[in-house]
Amino acid sequence: MSRLEQQLTFILEIDKLKTVLRQTLLTDMSRRENTAEHSWHLAVMGMLLTEYAIEPVDVLRAIKMVLVHDIVEIDAGDTFAYDTAGYTDKDDREQRAADRIFGLLPEEQGREFRELWAEFEARQTAESKYANALDRLQPLLHNWKTEGGTWRIHNVTKPAVLRRMEPVKIGMPEVYVVVKKIIEDACRVGWIAE
Amino acid sequence: MSRLEQQLTFILEIDKLKTVLRQTLLTDMSRRENTAEHSWHLAVMGMLLTEYAIEPVDVLRAIKMVLVHDIVEIDAGDTFAYDTAGYTDKDDREQRAADRIFGLLPEEQGREFRELWAEFEARQTAESKYANALDRLQPLLHNWKTEGGTWRIHNVTKPAVLRRMEPVKIGMPEVYVVVKKIIEDACRVGWIAE
Repeated sequence: MSRLEQQLTFILEIDKLKTVLRQTLLTDMSRRENTAEHSWHLAVMGMLLTEYAIEPVDVLRAIKMVLVHDIVEIDAGDTFAYDTAGYTDKDDREQRAADRIFGLLPEEQGREFRELWAEFEARQTAESKYANALDRLQPLLHNWKTEGGTWRIHNVTKPAVLRRMEPVKIGMPEVYVVVKKIIEDACRVGWIAE
Repeated sequence: MSRLEQQLTFILEIDKLKTVLRQTLLTDMSRRENTAEHSWHLAVMGMLLTEYAIEPVDVLRAIKMVLVHDIVEIDAGDTFAYDTAGYTDKDDREQRAADRIFGLLPEEQGREFRELWAEFEARQTAESKYANALDRLQPLLHNWKTEGGTWRIHNVTKPAVLRRMEPVKIGMPEVYVVVKKIIEDACRVGWIAE
């Protein structure tokens, strides 16, 4: 296969991310969100919220990171945030997925994508902290907008939500003030179980 | 409203782009594609295909452009590529949409988004030529993968497809060689009407 054919094969392959469903509902509650559109949403958020990042971020790197961070879900599926059992073999499933999917690309591009994904998962760099904060903030906003959304559907408790929002506290402390307020309000109206 | 509240309002507003349907089918033919996931697809393509751009591109600017280029469709709807009637008032509808939607953002961010969108539409800069080429290439790949897809559904003719692919010829001539071959093959098997 030529280099361009490899790239086009990968481009057609990742179309499958549009059929991977997350638990999060769209704000109009019409259906669950898929991972491709979720990734788009994070990328636009990434353009807008850099001023709140705890450390200065390279916006291009952060946007690339959110664009590719969930591609492994094509094979590994989405693991629901509050599903502790699903998390036991998440890493294995995702490593195999990364081998196969990023392996479709020309070598150095496959390596770049894999590194972006690994960097996102490790949450150590400025860009990764920012990207992870975005990834936690977005579903919170959706749950808030959909009268509790997945919090209510899955009876999620306040300590679990607070744990889940740790990356926002770490990556965007100023935004976390608003997150905290949303959580308190959601508890008060019963959308989050105390 | 505080600056952050304006930003979060916009972020929740653009969730609606996930419910704007395009004519393009997903490659598994299960349903039509929505504009949010389409924009994600273009952004990842934008990461991968810069080497084919006719002029050197600022990747960050090109990616930002494809991320925001269709946000106006929240109000203006998607105008099908081969719908000439729909194009007569497309510009008016989209200008009004840009006023309302980008107007939700803090002033300088709203201006940045509007400029990116206008730049995309004008097809003059290196980034815009590249972004427009991506925007035309992606549905062609989908039509190719789905046995003709929207070409067959809407009886699209070869001259119309060739016209539609002009931005690929302009922005990524090397890729256009493959596009041309796909069109020829699609004509031969009857997916595109001669």
